[in-house]
Amino acid sequence: METGSDEMRDAFGELIGIELLESSDDVVRARVPVSDRILQPYGLVHGGVYPVVAEIVCSRATHDAVIGDGKGALGQSNSTTFLRPISAGHVNAAARARHRGRTSWVWQVELTDDEGRLCALTQVVVAVRELPGN
Amino acid sequence: METGSDEMRDAFGELIGIELLESSDDVVRARVPVSDRILQPYGLVHGGVYPVVAEIVCSRATHDAVIGDGKGALGQSNSTTFLRPISAGHVNAAARARHRGRTSWVWQVELTDDEGRLCALTQVVVAVRELPGN
Amino acid sequence: METGSDEMRDAFGELIGIELLESSDDVVRARVPVSDRILQPYGLVHGGVYPVVAEIVCSRATHDAVIGDGKGALGQSNSTTFLRPISAGHVNAAARARHRGRTSWVWQVELTDDEGRLCALTQVVVAVRELPGN
Amino acid sequence: METGSDEMRDAFGELIGIELLESSDDVVRARVPVSDRILQPYGLVHGGVYPVVAEIVCSRATHDAVIGDGKGALGQSNSTTFLRPISAGHVNAAARARHRGRTSWVWQVELTDDEGRLCALTQVVVAVRELPGN
Repeated sequence: METGSDEMRDAFGELIGIELLESSDDVVRARVPVSDRILQPYGLVHGGVYPVVAEIVCSRATHDAVIGDGKGALGQSNSTTFLRPISAGHVNAAARARHRGRTSWVWQVELTDDEGRLCALTQVVVAVRELPGN
Repeated sequence: METGSDEMRDAFGELIGIELLESSDDVVRARVPVSDRILQPYGLVHGGVYPVVAEIVCSRATHDAVIGDGKGALGQSNSTTFLRPISAGHVNAAARARHRGRTSWVWQVELTDDEGRLCALTQVVVAVRELPGN
Repeated sequence: METGSDEMRDAFGELIGIELLESSDDVVRARVPVSDRILQPYGLVHGGVYPVVAEIVCSRATHDAVIGDGKGALGQSNSTTFLRPISAGHVNAAARARHRGRTSWVWQVELTDDEGRLCALTQVVVAVRELPGN
Repeated sequence: METGSDEMRDAFGELIGIELLESSDDVVRARVPVSDRILQPYGLVHGGVYPVVAEIVCSRATHDAVIGDGKGALGQSNSTTFLRPISAGHVNAAARARHRGRTSWVWQVELTDDEGRLCALTQVVVAVRELPGN
């Protein structure tokens, strides 16, 4: 893991089709365009997409924040509640770090449709660990 | 949604590469072969894969069980705890229904590596709803 | 259950020592004074106190909001992450309804110490059901 | 925290009325008699009781297992799903450790009524930390 985040490829994120939109101290925003490949058979975005998007955004953002100190980020838990289905447009994610601890970061993620309606809520805990060799 | 499950395509499951292995009253088993496309940049299976696999298995199995009564299955929550990373072989899932209620089913899913070590635990709640027209 | 909330006694809330402070459309605030009886043996507020406080506040507030329509509120899930221990002062709760659906309400609750530091986060889902006889 | 578990008082457990029944390598069992003080206004056991019972049992059992190595146990998360209300008898808890890691233990807890029906499921993560001075 000798590279910074710019050069890191995130194959799984690419598979899902995630697009990173904005990353500030306050919020990290990303989205996934709705296409046939993320729908379940009823024509709705598959429930599995919501925790994935949240996990990708939060683990990546935690990694970017701690790598400079020789630390790594490792997912610890992901708890998602589904509120309203999405069938078109994008799955939009807005992630806010609520706790930036020495050994773990806690994020809350809002997942909305293109009309801004809240469709899922995720809480993600990312463990922060010393990297081997540091 | 006029078709039975045999004819239903699950595009998102195919994207992830999930293989359904066994489905009995006691347990539903499935697995995902580890390949580059589900790894995160450190070479470990991306944390997002575990909730996805659990969600796919449990929503599908609940659907198959209730569709005969004119009902549908809709994910309600997915709570995953990560215990140990996987870097090769398969992500193996064993899902057990712990509650088969009128309005929701609750599943516990064990995710293991090919040596049988427990790598993640997921609890999935699937809402059961009347389908429009029934 | 023919009475409004003013007349309802909440024995369990009294046992814990909860004080309701404020209830508006935006936020419901309550607190529990720290005393010996809610400490664990290390002298810290017992981890079990945080989900309890969140559950009491959210189930009560949901009940108060739906009882006028002949509906009842029943806890569905409670997911708490502990961030920082509290050993003195109060456990302060601020609960915000993030989803007010026909069949469920979803709340996020911040639990803080008297210095305003975030000590736990809880997500509570409360089911809304028709009361028998309505 | 110089005492072993025999001498430790758990004031919060006493407040709730918890009784420890059995503690083996496989399972830890405890129960709480249903009385007016743990009911909510509808006459059902308050939803807050289930996560509390699980938290008390798991944090205590983890503590007892690691204290001999100079380590302490600190609750990290508690995720409870409610399945069926209890109005009489006992809230019975059976906790099984599913992961005994160096830095965290993960427990699954079944909460049942006196007829053995599953009424709630809890997943508890307890952090294991070096005690100051060790």
